Amino acid sequence: MSTTRHYINLTNSLFPLPGYAADGYARIKGISALVTTFGVGELSAINAIAGAYSEYVPVVHIVGTPSTLSQADGMLLHHTLGNGDFNVFSNMFRHVSCVVSMLNDPHEAATLIDNAIRECYVKSRPVYLTLPIDMVQQKVEGERLRTPIDLSFPLNEQEKENYVVDVVLKYLHVAKNPVIVVDACAIRHRVLDEVHQLAETSGSPTFVTPMGKGAVNETLPNYGGVYAGDGSRASVRDRVESSDLVLSIGSIKSDFNTAGFTYRISQLSTIDFHSTYVRVKYSEYPSVRMNGVLRKIIARMGRLNIGAGFKPNNTLPAVEPESSAQTITHAWFWPRMSQWLRPKDIVITETGTANFGIWETLFPADVTAISQVLWGSIGYATGACQGAALAAKELGINRTILFTGDGSFQLTAQELSTMIRHELKPIVFVICNDGYTIERYIHGMDAAYNDIQIWKYKDLVAVFGGVEDKTARTFQVRSKTEVEALFSDKEFSAAPFLQLVELYMPKEDAPLALKLTAEANTRNNAKA
Amino acid sequence: MSTTRHYINLTNSLFPLPGYAADGYARIKGISALVTTFGVGELSAINAIAGAYSEYVPVVHIVGTPSTLSQADGMLLHHTLGNGDFNVFSNMFRHVSCVVSMLNDPHEAATLIDNAIRECYVKSRPVYLTLPIDMVQQKVEGERLRTPIDLSFPLNEQEKENYVVDVVLKYLHVAKNPVIVVDACAIRHRVLDEVHQLAETSGSPTFVTPMGKGAVNETLPNYGGVYAGDGSRASVRDRVESSDLVLSIGSIKSDFNTAGFTYRISQLSTIDFHSTYVRVKYSEYPSVRMNGVLRKIIARMGRLNIGAGFKPNNTLPAVEPESSAQTITHAWFWPRMSQWLRPKDIVITETGTANFGIWETLFPADVTAISQVLWGSIGYATGACQGAALAAKELGINRTILFTGDGSFQLTAQELSTMIRHELKPIVFVICNDGYTIERYIHGMDAAYNDIQIWKYKDLVAVFGGVEDKTARTFQVRSKTEVEALFSDKEFSAAPFLQLVELYMPKEDAPLALKLTAEANTRNNAKA
Repeated sequence: MSTTRHYINLTNSLFPLPGYAADGYARIKGISALVTTFGVGELSAINAIAGAYSEYVPVVHIVGTPSTLSQADGMLLHHTLGNGDFNVFSNMFRHVSCVVSMLNDPHEAATLIDNAIRECYVKSRPVYLTLPIDMVQQKVEGERLRTPIDLSFPLNEQEKENYVVDVVLKYLHVAKNPVIVVDACAIRHRVLDEVHQLAETSGSPTFVTPMGKGAVNETLPNYGGVYAGDGSRASVRDRVESSDLVLSIGSIKSDFNTAGFTYRISQLSTIDFHSTYVRVKYSEYPSVRMNGVLRKIIARMGRLNIGAGFKPNNTLPAVEPESSAQTITHAWFWPRMSQWLRPKDIVITETGTANFGIWETLFPADVTAISQVLWGSIGYATGACQGAALAAKELGINRTILFTGDGSFQLTAQELSTMIRHELKPIVFVICNDGYTIERYIHGMDAAYNDIQIWKYKDLVAVFGGVEDKTARTFQVRSKTEVEALFSDKEFSAAPFLQLVELYMPKEDAPLALKLTAEANTRNNAKA
Repeated sequence: MSTTRHYINLTNSLFPLPGYAADGYARIKGISALVTTFGVGELSAINAIAGAYSEYVPVVHIVGTPSTLSQADGMLLHHTLGNGDFNVFSNMFRHVSCVVSMLNDPHEAATLIDNAIRECYVKSRPVYLTLPIDMVQQKVEGERLRTPIDLSFPLNEQEKENYVVDVVLKYLHVAKNPVIVVDACAIRHRVLDEVHQLAETSGSPTFVTPMGKGAVNETLPNYGGVYAGDGSRASVRDRVESSDLVLSIGSIKSDFNTAGFTYRISQLSTIDFHSTYVRVKYSEYPSVRMNGVLRKIIARMGRLNIGAGFKPNNTLPAVEPESSAQTITHAWFWPRMSQWLRPKDIVITETGTANFGIWETLFPADVTAISQVLWGSIGYATGACQGAALAAKELGINRTILFTGDGSFQLTAQELSTMIRHELKPIVFVICNDGYTIERYIHGMDAAYNDIQIWKYKDLVAVFGGVEDKTARTFQVRSKTEVEALFSDKEFSAAPFLQLVELYMPKEDAPLALKLTAEANTRNNAKA
């Protein structure tokens, strides 16, 4: 009855994505795996894994290690610190992994693997497994493969859950103008079905935070826009901040997600829904996961008082007043881009101007947005794009669209090579604005350390093996007219193969939200 | 009397080299500094810092952190794990730094900085300092700047040192054919002056290990070649292994430094000299640093019996028998390259074929070799080349020469851009052999995971802003004749600006030492 299970097959069947790519892939497919070597490989990936930990992305990190015998003997092997300590690196990973297990014993390996996969998925955070080389060909009991791993969330204690639901409904029914604000953890902890139902059923004005972009169907009549304190449009800010009850779902109130801690919502008018607790005003309910609570609220809430006087901005955003100026500005580009997007697009934005610019883009239905607003590692988006584009290919999603800056792109540009190698078809926009614009706004507008070496970005495609018009295509756009022509180009928009666009924007131009956030950041740093 | 000391000036005056570059720079200049940001920046550098720790390279790592107030308040800032813990990353670095200090208090900051610099230099390992943004403009007592930091090694206890010297001399004087074997720690712990004197004064056959390459003047008549167990030439192996007394200086007997643990030297005929102890046969003398011991041995040793019957291989190595075959093989290239090298060249080799091939190159005087044989992080050499070339520029050294493989080069290729930006003039050889040849020999000669995407490597120079024949030059060599022509090209050899050479070699060709080491590695992995 037993079948054998060779771990070499397991690891080889997982695509050996680098760290950022594994993160991007997991955000599309739900989970991913990363295979690295001991020491040098795993440490090269630790920044990416820390990002996945910070932002709740489930990545199974498998580290190939020296044999259990070599480790027991403390051999002086390459990829070690030369001190015979083979646990140094796993100890580092304990800080950024929700499970760390060593597969040193065939009798427990299968159990540890199943546990790691389950914890990874349920907690939506990285796990870390070591696979010594002498374990690769060990045989283990295969019977357990007949039982799928239980990936369901543990149910809340029902009496407690019902109590919380009653408390929430009590406040919801007396609220005069409740609003919903959806943030990153709604995506990462998988309550999007509930969020969609809540937004549709309640009709309540529904907003997203920057990290929550993509969590709400932005074509809904009651979708209200992006709320981020002082970084919001005036109409959005007024409506959210004057609400007497904010249903806050999966919030992460980080500096860059709140335009520098500029929320003006009282906890006295807030109900927070999280994966590990619910908080109603100041009453905390630990160990109550939001998913079940939200489902019951939706089922029982009936008709709400949604207030009046707010017309949600659910039409395409207004663009800059037309002028003869041809310069591509952030104020013009990001709203304009809304009309070019299509349902189901995957949109990836890099830390920098793109992550703030995207606030001004209105998405069609079913767009998935990927960004790294909390961890904010420069170069992340290009790596994540590789993984996301691979996941898109596997899922039959047509378009994966990346917006990165020239400075950021320089850190992980070789991911283009991997995309070409695997025949992925992303559309890569490189914002060419001569350096680190976000850093200029934080410190040193004209400082040399914010300048970069200017590259011929589009020529990289040929260097990496792309053949123009056959397996790839490149573009340069320097004016609004050229952007319009590009967006009207049906072949471009059809994404037949990898395409790279050099998008020229002024060095000192930035989205308004970025300027506000940078100012708040500077104020915060100046506090003594 | 006091002057002020602004830390911002300190950090800005240090070149913000990425990790591998900081390592390469330190190996040439004696110490270096690396400035990163909190979280994302430092974790991107942790692999490089671990390499510097493993291989005893002094790098001062300065991390710019959020303000002490933000940290005390546990603010939810970007570049954090979102849990209010600002010590996670410094705790990781404690494993790979000999000092970790937080500059949170102006009253102790200067002391902590001086201590870190001293420990970094004396222990020859990385140190880690955090600099919160609110500390940057703090004023501190400047009086201490008038006293240079004492960077001298602590003296050994003299009675103990004399005792050890007497013991060593006793064995040395009765030895019939003593030899000297010089390894990496002789370089890293700065006993090269003593090594040079010992080799010259004693006239004893003197060998280097692979990691010790460059530690001995290879034009000395008694320089014998590279000893690495079974990876050595037969004449070298015979002479070292038949010696009745091996003076082993700064050894690191790692797998790749010993051709897979194939040393055949008895501890009964070995005296080990180290930075923290001396060991004579099985007698250990802790806390006795080799430097003082070696100086006294040189002064007192007199004439040694250096045996007979060994003719040191101090002429240029024999190359492959001349044949009509034009293929550039490792067996031909590395010995041939000896004649092209010049005194004072800096030669950097990447983990892979280059690190083994260089065993067969005979150096002119005063060549500095850089490699990472113990840590072995792929992509290291190109980064290290950037730092080394910068150090060379500052020191007026003309040539920095890099040998890397195509697979390795792909990981850190953008360092070329930094080299162009800073007008550095390295000669970069990219060995184009279609992938990871060293990995093919370890596992999977024809496996797809050892293949790479083929790039147009030399075209990267133009992409990164180099102008052919004005600020850079590129070459392709595919035959022995083309190599000869290149080496005869006086302008090429003069290194007027950055030059990149695509050097085509067969996919499955490798230096003999690599093949032997890979076989030993496989045998070791197979042990149950």
